[in-house]
Order: sequence, then C-alpha cells, then structure tokens
Amino acid sequence: MTPGRTTVALEDPGYPPLRGSFLAAGAKVSAVPVDAEGLAVDRLPSQTRVICVTPSHQFPLGSVMSARRRGDLLDFAQARGAVVIEDDYDGEFRFGDRPLDALQTLDRAACVFYVGTFSKSLLPGIRLAYIVAPPWARPALVAAKALADGHCCTFIQDTLAALLAEGHLARHVRKMQRIYAGRRERLLDCLKSDCAEWLDPIPSAAGLHIAAVSRKVVDDVALVAEARKLGVRVHALGAHYVRRPVKRGLLFGYGAIEENAIAEGLRRLRRVLRLVNTRL
Amino acid sequence: MTPGRTTVALEDPGYPPLRGSFLAAGAKVSAVPVDAEGLAVDRLPSQTRVICVTPSHQFPLGSVMSARRRGDLLDFAQARGAVVIEDDYDGEFRFGDRPLDALQTLDRAACVFYVGTFSKSLLPGIRLAYIVAPPWARPALVAAKALADGHCCTFIQDTLAALLAEGHLARHVRKMQRIYAGRRERLLDCLKSDCAEWLDPIPSAAGLHIAAVSRKVVDDVALVAEARKLGVRVHALGAHYVRRPVKRGLLFGYGAIEENAIAEGLRRLRRVLRLVNTRL
Repeated sequence: MTPGRTTVALEDPGYPPLRGSFLAAGAKVSAVPVDAEGLAVDRLPSQTRVICVTPSHQFPLGSVMSARRRGDLLDFAQARGAVVIEDDYDGEFRFGDRPLDALQTLDRAACVFYVGTFSKSLLPGIRLAYIVAPPWARPALVAAKALADGHCCTFIQDTLAALLAEGHLARHVRKMQRIYAGRRERLLDCLKSDCAEWLDPIPSAAGLHIAAVSRKVVDDVALVAEARKLGVRVHALGAHYVRRPVKRGLLFGYGAIEENAIAEGLRRLRRVLRLVNTRL
Repeated sequence: MTPGRTTVALEDPGYPPLRGSFLAAGAKVSAVPVDAEGLAVDRLPSQTRVICVTPSHQFPLGSVMSARRRGDLLDFAQARGAVVIEDDYDGEFRFGDRPLDALQTLDRAACVFYVGTFSKSLLPGIRLAYIVAPPWARPALVAAKALADGHCCTFIQDTLAALLAEGHLARHVRKMQRIYAGRRERLLDCLKSDCAEWLDPIPSAAGLHIAAVSRKVVDDVALVAEARKLGVRVHALGAHYVRRPVKRGLLFGYGAIEENAIAEGLRRLRRVLRLVNTRL
C-alpha cells in the first residue's frame, strides 16, 4: 500500500480501531453504510482498493451478509482490481443454519484475504491470529510481518500448535458453543421479557454478542454510562458509526458473563432504560 | 510521523531490519557513517528529525559512543528539534569499566527515547521490550501501540512482571554475566591464537557479540557461507552497511554457544580464513 493514496472502505457501523490503524498507515478511509444485506456495495467509491467486511457476523450489528451481496462485492472487487479483507472474527460459534459460503470460498479472482483469530475461539490475551491469503500476496505479507515485529511470541505459538495438533481447540470450541448458546438464549429471553418496550434485538446466527436497536432515539452513549454505574457493562451502537448513526442501541457481549448473571444484569438495565426513556 | 516526509538517520553500519521498518512507514532514511567515536554527527542531514543510535554497544561494530560525541549528538538534536532513539539492546551485560552516562541521562531537552528489550537479558522468543519516553510523547506512543496490535500477550507480560518483582531477572542477568564473560574471554583468546593473522577484534565492553575486522579486503559474505558449510555460524560485517562497506569482517555471537564449543568453532573457521585469504 502506498501511504496516503490507497482508498480503504470500511463498514459503517464498524470496528473503530480498524479505522485508526488504516489512517495511521496513511490510507484514505471511506465509511460505507451497512444495510440489512450487508455492506452497501453500490456506495463503494470507485477508486476503492481495499474493502474490509465482516460477512459472517457484521460487527457490531451482528447480521449476515446475504448471498447476493457477497456476489456483488466480489464482482466489484474483480472489476476494480480491489482486494477484500474478510474478517471472520467470531465465526467459530454458530447458532443457526449452515453458514453461507465464505467470500474466500466464492472468490475466483484471488482477491480475498480471509482473516481469523484465536481471540474469540480461545482467548484474546494470546494475541494470535492468521490470514489465509491469495498465493500472490504471501511474500509481501511475510515481509510486512518481519518488518512490523519480527515474529509473535514463540512460546505461545508452540503451545497453540500443540493444542491444535492434539484436538483440544476443536473440543474447546464445541464445549464453549454449548455454553455460549445457553447464555445467548437466556440473553434473548431476558431482552424479550424485560426490555422489549425499548430494545429490539437484531437477528444473528453467530458470534459472541448481540446488538439490540433502541426503539426510540436515545443517547445510547449516555445510557451505557448510566448502566455502568449499576455494574452493567454494555456498549453503545451509536459509538460504532463514523457518519451520523443510523441506529442507536446497545451491544451485549456474552463471552465473559455467567449464564446465571444475565437476568440480574438485564433487570438493572431495565431500570436505566426506563429512566432514560422517561426523560425524553 | 508524517509518512513520506520525516528524515530518519540510521547508523551505517547498522541493523538492517530497522531500515526496512522506517522505509515501510514512509520515512526518508539516511545512512550516516560511524567512526571510532560513534555516529558522525557532522554528517547528519540538517533536516533530520529522528536519529537512531546504539551508544553503549554499537551494532554491529561493538564500539562505545564517546562522551564528546554524545554531547555533540544531543546538541544537534536540541538545535534542530530532532528526537534521538537510544537503542540499548544488550547493555545489561558489561565487561569493563563503569559505563558512560546514557544519552537519556544527559538529555536536557526531553528529546531522547531510551529503548530496552528482554530479548538479550532474558530471551528473544517472549517479544517484549520497552521505551522510556519523554513525558510529552507518552500519549502518542500509547495510541500508536493500541493501533499497531492492541497490546502484547498478557500471559507473557504477567509472567515477566512476576519474574521482575521477585528479583529473578536480576539474578539471571548476574548469573549470565559470569557465563557470557567466560565465553567472551575464550572467544577473544581463540581469535588471538588462531585468527590473528586475518582478523582484528574491535574493542568493546558490553553485549553478546564481538566484531572482528578483516585485515585484508575479503568477501565476508562468501566467507560466512563457507564457514556455514563447516557448521560455523558467523555473520558478515559487510552485510550491515547500506553504503559501500568501510570495514569487512565477521560478527561472533556468544549468546547461544557453550564455552567449550568455541575453540573447535574457531579452529574450523581458521581453515576457511586460510582458504579464502589464499585465493586473494
């Protein structure tokens, strides 16, 4: 990437640190809206050369990119000579039907970089992730990694390699899938019973968080601050937009909360929601 | 740093990957000669904004930057508004007199970034290092780290923190200091007894390697390749220059060789040196 020249398209709403990293690298960053089918491909600037998407579980909305939109995106990339970074950050955990084919599976132009991580499937502290890249890009990626930090911690890499080789990670994912499914169900039940008046969960079939859209226009950042005072940690959907937020609401992570703590959290949140909505 | 604009001065000879990292970041990189007193401050381009030096143990030559040169360098930095990155990569291991004051100790303009690492004092696989930065630069450094990779592996950081808190690292360094001193003495003895005809060690008082200058102009890169065939791993001094090499010779690391393997290594190297010098 030539600093200062490459146009990079990011989903809006999206993952804020990603924008910072591309800006720091000198890229021109374009925030492209996300609709019910995923990234609005027809809103991509024509000079876009890098497109970052989260098709299996849009971050933060949680929705899945439709099959049609996947085709449109690959057509755009092929026609314009752009590359697609397919960030499948938590696709190991699925709660619905068979997933759609990954962009990389559908890719006929060798333009998709599939990115995975062990942050969700195992734990974030190990700082290990991977890229499945088109063959033409591998030498450049290896060189970039060498210049960035040489290599990752060898002890953690060796430990992870043993964990993978002995099948422990696959077993861990299967076990956690059951546990996360229980938490997710409990969370959706509580949202329905306690918060339906104010929050509407966005359907999703994967991952470790659920987004719920606020039925009224509220300051979701202020709402999050109020919730925190009661010991409830949620995130503001509005804080994940670069342009003016299209949706306001809350993100609920269930990767690090015990199933039996969810109901109490939602009861407290209900008090905050009632208060904030009364003020309107 | 504004990509493509900042002039960064690096020592020549120096550490080749450093140049690659700055070039990848879009900097204009200037290779500045090193003489017997250290970086030739009078050869710094006037527009230099970042100066990287290894004053306690020049890499790769092994020499120490003189007190006078340290003063000159700080005067330059202060006058030009430049920052100095003082890379003390292996200064924990000292074999001579009391060291000169670090540039950062002498710094009155808050322009020196002191960089240390656990790669040499402990082991490189943990990938942990640190920067002692002027207060004005800390928020930017914290932000840059967050954008680069979020954070380092938490488990390795916790383990290292415990090791430090319990005094184990200090004990480890004291123990290794004795072991490295033995290897270093043996290496210098063998260089004198077996290779004095061809190689002249550069005096140094710290670190985990010694550079020895070739008395005749030889292709040190080819010499290294020949040595490797006999199972001897050394590095070419000439490969560490960006401009035409001023010195040719070999680098001998003693961080990872047993003391009693050194003599045999040098005997084999002697055969290669005799062969290569006969060909001249």
